[in-house]
Amino acid sequence: MKATVYHGARDVRLETVADPVLREPTDAIVRVTRAAICGSDLWFYRGVTQWEPGDRTGHEFIGIVEETGSAVRSVAPGDLVIAPFVSSDGTCEFCKEGLPTSCVHMTNWGDDANGGQAEAVRVPYADGTLVKALPAIAGDARKIASALTLTDVMATGHHGVVSARGARGGTVVIVGDGAVGLCGVLSASKVIGAERVIAVGHNAKRLELAREFGATHAFNSHDDGVAAEIVELTRGGSAAVVEAVGNQESMDLAVEVARPGGTVAFVGVPHNVQTPPMRPLFLKNVALRGALAPARTYIEPLMLKVADGSIDPGRVFDLQLALDGVAEGYAAMDERRAIKVLLEVSP
Amino acid sequence: MKATVYHGARDVRLETVADPVLREPTDAIVRVTRAAICGSDLWFYRGVTQWEPGDRTGHEFIGIVEETGSAVRSVAPGDLVIAPFVSSDGTCEFCKEGLPTSCVHMTNWGDDANGGQAEAVRVPYADGTLVKALPAIAGDARKIASALTLTDVMATGHHGVVSARGARGGTVVIVGDGAVGLCGVLSASKVIGAERVIAVGHNAKRLELAREFGATHAFNSHDDGVAAEIVELTRGGSAAVVEAVGNQESMDLAVEVARPGGTVAFVGVPHNVQTPPMRPLFLKNVALRGALAPARTYIEPLMLKVADGSIDPGRVFDLQLALDGVAEGYAAMDERRAIKVLLEVSP
Repeated sequence: MKATVYHGARDVRLETVADPVLREPTDAIVRVTRAAICGSDLWFYRGVTQWEPGDRTGHEFIGIVEETGSAVRSVAPGDLVIAPFVSSDGTCEFCKEGLPTSCVHMTNWGDDANGGQAEAVRVPYADGTLVKALPAIAGDARKIASALTLTDVMATGHHGVVSARGARGGTVVIVGDGAVGLCGVLSASKVIGAERVIAVGHNAKRLELAREFGATHAFNSHDDGVAAEIVELTRGGSAAVVEAVGNQESMDLAVEVARPGGTVAFVGVPHNVQTPPMRPLFLKNVALRGALAPARTYIEPLMLKVADGSIDPGRVFDLQLALDGVAEGYAAMDERRAIKVLLEVSP
Repeated sequence: MKATVYHGARDVRLETVADPVLREPTDAIVRVTRAAICGSDLWFYRGVTQWEPGDRTGHEFIGIVEETGSAVRSVAPGDLVIAPFVSSDGTCEFCKEGLPTSCVHMTNWGDDANGGQAEAVRVPYADGTLVKALPAIAGDARKIASALTLTDVMATGHHGVVSARGARGGTVVIVGDGAVGLCGVLSASKVIGAERVIAVGHNAKRLELAREFGATHAFNSHDDGVAAEIVELTRGGSAAVVEAVGNQESMDLAVEVARPGGTVAFVGVPHNVQTPPMRPLFLKNVALRGALAPARTYIEPLMLKVADGSIDPGRVFDLQLALDGVAEGYAAMDERRAIKVLLEVSP
């Protein structure tokens, strides 16, 4: 089969590799139909995190089950399935506490020569990991794109809002207008039901999409005095803030607009934060909550909203390529020509 | 009157200064009966935070109301009162949300030539700030010492546990065996009712007091493998962790023993934390919550427990001096000869 392989900074290639095979009775083999490139993929692509040449890429995919191990019960060959960005057994203490990302059997896609930007994937603990897509999704290209976002970016935006304790009728500030930030806006507005959703970004086109996703206010982070304006607008700050950029300026801004007693959830490893603002966190009694999304937990409830058309997070994809365009997809995201790339792997 | 004045690193002096006078109708003048030296006073004493020569010291005191402004209603001359470590108006939005430390009229003791390690203090917003002590406290030296801890250290330990979401029947880890850490143990055990209270420190005598305060386990932080032992003991970490030291090692340890999904509350400005452990916070979905104690909010409920004898946080004082021994008191805490110093200012 074909799979995307890392060779070095800004060098990923589609290559022919061995087909995946069942190893454990709990495994499934999934033929990938759609995959995506994640903003977090840019960390290795840019050489910020160290990867080894030969590593496989991709952790966002949906596909058709091709084969299952003897112990697999919840999915069967022919099912369209959605995979979260890590696998989990579904039965351990942490899975039961709703944190499959802390599963004792958690594995990352990409490890063990098993990436998602490929024609097929071996899925460990298929019963715990995979979610069977609703019939309403299968035949609809837009809903399929939205279902693909549930593997990571929509689950992550939603988890940011949940972790920041965004509440129905309340206020949520989302710092960042990338795909996760936009999905956070959609979650705050359409899933959680916040009354005031404040988007902060610096790209006019993305902020326009934020408004379409339900942002009641949009601020350009490059304008002077944005933090003060938001504090004024919210009469002292927002109890719920999502930090969806991961650099020093965005982290400082997020904490600055947080209301005393509130929560700032950060949804990625902040590679460029040298000095988290500990002093204002302390003085304002603000919590800085790490928010690695337990995507598996959210796929089912969010899939219902995708199926009935009440959310359409697939709109964050603004570039669609065939799998053999994967290198161009990375370049487009690296150069900010695209918010997020959808790879059409098979029909 | 006599007041303690900062002159430079490791140089505080008791000096004769002007008596405080009423300035606003909401003020009260309080004649101090007991004051204390706070661990956080050591930051300026050691020259870590920059103070100006001439600044007044002290933010922990109780005393007798001597005079009140025309608008003061809740206290009267002759009342024994407990003052939290900052003043607050008691009426603003943040006071009503339970965060008087974020009061729009908040002032710090020590500012404006008005410190608590002195014979008298001018108290702004006396109605919002002061709490009248229960009669059961006034005649009892041990209860008076315990009431004095409510001004800061016991309120702070308790707020750490509350902020970490310590729960009845649950587990709380307290990193630090200073006065705040010990008060955290007391809160977790006797106020919150946690079932497993794990104290981590490095002073055998203090850890013994932690056990008397209700710690079910005590670990020496200098022993190898302490974090792994605690994770093992708690089968994956504690959902509630209080960080009551403020250096890199203690912060790392606190996050290491936090359960996925849990909270680490830090109860002081962490002057010696260069790199907060953002990556494990993210991967484990742990919140790092700043926890500047809204002491005023807790004084009343905790005072009831002091009055009925169910908590005795005054035991953290292990050195008692007259006010003219204040310089020796600072030196004793600086050199770790004392956990915490009580200053007897007037009978």
